[in-house]
Amino acid sequence: MTVYLVGAGPGDPELITARGLRLLRACDILVHDRLVAAELVEEAPPEALRVPRERLTQEEVNELLVAYGRAGLEVVRLKGGDPFVFGRGGEEALALAAAGVPFEVVPGVSALAAVPAAAGIPVTHRGLASQVTVVTGHGCDGGVLDYAALAGAPGTLVFFMALRALATIADGLLAHGKPPSTPAAVIASGTLPEQRAVVAPLADIAEAARGLEPPALVVIGEVVSLGGVLAPSSAGETVAV
Amino acid sequence: MTVYLVGAGPGDPELITARGLRLLRACDILVHDRLVAAELVEEAPPEALRVPRERLTQEEVNELLVAYGRAGLEVVRLKGGDPFVFGRGGEEALALAAAGVPFEVVPGVSALAAVPAAAGIPVTHRGLASQVTVVTGHGCDGGVLDYAALAGAPGTLVFFMALRALATIADGLLAHGKPPSTPAAVIASGTLPEQRAVVAPLADIAEAARGLEPPALVVIGEVVSLGGVLAPSSAGETVAV
Repeated sequence: MTVYLVGAGPGDPELITARGLRLLRACDILVHDRLVAAELVEEAPPEALRVPRERLTQEEVNELLVAYGRAGLEVVRLKGGDPFVFGRGGEEALALAAAGVPFEVVPGVSALAAVPAAAGIPVTHRGLASQVTVVTGHGCDGGVLDYAALAGAPGTLVFFMALRALATIADGLLAHGKPPSTPAAVIASGTLPEQRAVVAPLADIAEAARGLEPPALVVIGEVVSLGGVLAPSSAGETVAV
Repeated sequence: MTVYLVGAGPGDPELITARGLRLLRACDILVHDRLVAAELVEEAPPEALRVPRERLTQEEVNELLVAYGRAGLEVVRLKGGDPFVFGRGGEEALALAAAGVPFEVVPGVSALAAVPAAAGIPVTHRGLASQVTVVTGHGCDGGVLDYAALAGAPGTLVFFMALRALATIADGLLAHGKPPSTPAAVIASGTLPEQRAVVAPLADIAEAARGLEPPALVVIGEVVSLGGVLAPSSAGETVAV
């Protein structure tokens, strides 16, 4: 009996790991995020119990995992991206550890680099970026972001869950000296057939991204300029402003 | 004919993506990094040509990929981690684009979060870290790191290729006000059976990590303290100082 906290990857169901897929195909219970691909939910055995996470609080998810784990079942907790990159996997792992339930974290492909890649953008690139700063758009537990530090950070900035706050984020970076011409991109539904991307200078990105819907990732930095050369033909619609 | 730039994941061969494994099993040519698991090199068809990358310059690798791609072969370029996270995948992609050779990037599980996870460390955690700064230990193209900015960055710091420069990095962060008691970890051969990890306060980490060999990842921040609770029993040896 083990509870596996499995990363499903960034969206495309084929981007789950071989290990994650093997465990999924053998589970008794599947507790899955809303954004996990339907194809992956179908990979669980027909007789496995599927529990969508969306109407449960985090506390209820923790309790459920502990209860199923204690019952001696093989449980897969399938989470979008990677469980430990803005996935709250640490909270579930702590609950399981406190209850003495064996668990294992199976990492996944995070959106952090895979979603930019799906728009032809490498988050690091020799001569352009040897540092990546990854942050949530809503700041540390509801606090505000340190725009001075972020504006001065070298390399690439990647924002998770930043679509709604995009104008605030762009204004904050510009107010602290980030050049208005800095290339920026917003990629919605990255790695999926319905992927849509918008590329624009930082000063215009919030306006350009109007109409995009979550989930979306925001990338800011010189590497974004490579997307024009490297974007795959299968990348869905990219609008450059 | 396509050249696939495929991420092999952080070390454990089962952490390749389902898509990467499918392409690997169907390739004509496999050009692989030294650190890619032997089990994955074996997954290519018996008749596939295997080309180890290690004695080639980056320029030669680029030329080889272009030549095989032009010859109409299915080529897998298998790289450790993710091709676009310190993997120089962007350089190979640019060479292929310039030559008009079709290519596709298949992202992989980066060491960035998977290796800390293998030591029980979530790089983000509610209340402890909502930002991750990822950097190479040797700075931007041989330049020096901005220790003032790194010491002031909130959340978690992750250093790639930092084992040799660890004393310099720790001294630089301490000199710019990072508290000496900040939890730090060095994880060598992460996700592999031979994984070894060392955990110590930042002031002591360079001394504590003596004897570890690359590849190694350095993690600095409060999240490291969770490793004591969450480290899997399969994690290999962890030494806490």
